Amino acid sequence: MGDGKTGLQLRSLIKKSGELEISLLNVATPEPAADEVVVRVEATPINPSDFGLLVGAADMTTAKASGTNEHPVITAKVPEAGMKAMAGRLDESMPVGNEGAGVVIKTGSSDAAKALMGKTVAMIGGAMYAQYRCLKVNECLPLPDGTTPAEGASCFVNPLTALGMTETMRREGHKALVHTAAASNLGQMLNKICLKDGIPLVNIVRSREQADILHKIGAKHVVDSSSPTFMDDLTGALTETGATLAFDAIGGGKLAGQILACMEIAINKTAKVYSRYGSNVHKQVYIYGGLDPRPVELNRTFGMAWGVGGWLLFPFLMKIGPVDGKRLRERVIDELKTTFASHYTKVVSLREALDPANIAIYAKRSTGEKFLINPNKGG
Amino acid sequence: MGDGKTGLQLRSLIKKSGELEISLLNVATPEPAADEVVVRVEATPINPSDFGLLVGAADMTTAKASGTNEHPVITAKVPEAGMKAMAGRLDESMPVGNEGAGVVIKTGSSDAAKALMGKTVAMIGGAMYAQYRCLKVNECLPLPDGTTPAEGASCFVNPLTALGMTETMRREGHKALVHTAAASNLGQMLNKICLKDGIPLVNIVRSREQADILHKIGAKHVVDSSSPTFMDDLTGALTETGATLAFDAIGGGKLAGQILACMEIAINKTAKVYSRYGSNVHKQVYIYGGLDPRPVELNRTFGMAWGVGGWLLFPFLMKIGPVDGKRLRERVIDELKTTFASHYTKVVSLREALDPANIAIYAKRSTGEKFLINPNKGG
Repeated sequence: MGDGKTGLQLRSLIKKSGELEISLLNVATPEPAADEVVVRVEATPINPSDFGLLVGAADMTTAKASGTNEHPVITAKVPEAGMKAMAGRLDESMPVGNEGAGVVIKTGSSDAAKALMGKTVAMIGGAMYAQYRCLKVNECLPLPDGTTPAEGASCFVNPLTALGMTETMRREGHKALVHTAAASNLGQMLNKICLKDGIPLVNIVRSREQADILHKIGAKHVVDSSSPTFMDDLTGALTETGATLAFDAIGGGKLAGQILACMEIAINKTAKVYSRYGSNVHKQVYIYGGLDPRPVELNRTFGMAWGVGGWLLFPFLMKIGPVDGKRLRERVIDELKTTFASHYTKVVSLREALDPANIAIYAKRSTGEKFLINPNKGG
Repeated sequence: MGDGKTGLQLRSLIKKSGELEISLLNVATPEPAADEVVVRVEATPINPSDFGLLVGAADMTTAKASGTNEHPVITAKVPEAGMKAMAGRLDESMPVGNEGAGVVIKTGSSDAAKALMGKTVAMIGGAMYAQYRCLKVNECLPLPDGTTPAEGASCFVNPLTALGMTETMRREGHKALVHTAAASNLGQMLNKICLKDGIPLVNIVRSREQADILHKIGAKHVVDSSSPTFMDDLTGALTETGATLAFDAIGGGKLAGQILACMEIAINKTAKVYSRYGSNVHKQVYIYGGLDPRPVELNRTFGMAWGVGGWLLFPFLMKIGPVDGKRLRERVIDELKTTFASHYTKVVSLREALDPANIAIYAKRSTGEKFLINPNKGG
């Protein structure tokens, strides 16, 4: 561990020439202002939501390692077709890492800042892939005694996204949920919430192995999109649960439309009268991820009462306001070691995060693989 | 004209065998209950929204005429692929016609019903392709003196849909509108409303001729999707107007996604900071028609703040409630001969509506062609 005055920070840069460069810089730690603290970051996850900023549209199968042992550099090609979407960030070296946890090693002069000295805190606000992070007191969440940084590293993105799904369900008048890529860390969390809160949940997975993961943690409705009976299985689960709201991490392809089509069939099983416009029951799919970058293809066989749209955590939190946001955060802290426990397959240092062998694993973004970076780990 | 005791009624039937049959039945006119009246229907339009019930998924290029001169019958094949969506109406003979106008020839015993005797009224509620229609007083809208049934025949669907678009815009916090298939009867109405109310409107058309129609009635922003510069033209119009809400009659293909993509580019022209999730400004496309039955294809280059969904008049009216609904209907009556004037290319009898030569024209559903049925016209 360093002295806190300077530390390594991971940077991602996409050049106008079409090259991605990920590197480690030595940066000076800022002096904390009155309402700020400096945190020694000891745990920060690689979430799918970080991945977009970390590698952008680059093709990571072209990744090459260079630089020194002390300062490794990864470069990769960004395909021509991907460059348009990168326009806003070209030639700008960007820090990465939405959330993390660590120990407060220095504070500003305010009482609120001083009260955090030595505490283990969870953090949100970006630039967490760094040894030291200076940030505002209200961007920190003090963790209960006996909580390690690794246990608190994923306090925000996944837990609040999962709770955001059940909150959205209630606010928009639905009674049950559908979730895709459902064996993910987030999906397992959502299962625990739904089991605890008595919310029927239909899990859509892409393999038998993923179905097994969910059955083991008590999931009741699991349907496998790789099965030849997928549409019938899904319709059956929707009929049983009455789910009319889905959260979809996949995005591209036909899945969102298939979910709407099966919802409509399930609803019409109880319909008494023919309506040329389909049922009057509103069916909604929110796309919150993009595991499949292909276009969304909606074959409109589901009447006129439907919606598909983007869903993001931070606009959702803005919408519900600070009081409800606080209620959700408090629940996360209360159930941090049970409902909201995250599991990591590997803990790496910043340098190891730039090791091509590790990149090859986490760049696949496969369900079940999850890396945690400890920027103050040796190696 | 008949005696009012029995009259012709158009029926549409799709058989389990995959055959559409359109025919004219002689039906007895019901005795009006206390709060009902019998109207001699003299004008009822063939709207796109009627067409779905009239021919369903049938392929009208296979249409054949049979029956007698008095009772003509049209049959056509429903392609195998279209039968699934017809499941709810198989072997059920259905009356057709959302709206119309005519003269009250008999009333129930209530004062409200008696007050309508002899009046020309506009009607909503289905089964209007008939010589006589018995319906509730509150399904009638008395027309001002000097208004003909033909002038009042399209009081509801198009005018309230067009007003529903500007109402939705205001309620959902947008400042300008986009409309597709914009040279339609409805599209021209929307232009008149927007010009009168000072709402910036971007009209998307599919040909130079349609653009000319709109320029002639004073439309300011008209872009042609058949032009090679379409995306740039649309982005320019969106930048000028700030439109972030579109109503799309086309449905299938890439158009909805192109509109969202151009909205995002227009919004980001003023953005100061890179966000990997795109702009925070919500962009919405409501699909209210299905001129193109292909799947909707959304190439998500427009960030995460977006929505695409179905929009239907009647659920919208339910949502805004009776007070606001009344306000919209009153405006339609006030401006019936100006803003909300409909133009018909041909007036036909019920028998003529079943003439293959006429079907060949209105089945094309081309912009600018609009038929009016007068069920009490000879012929």
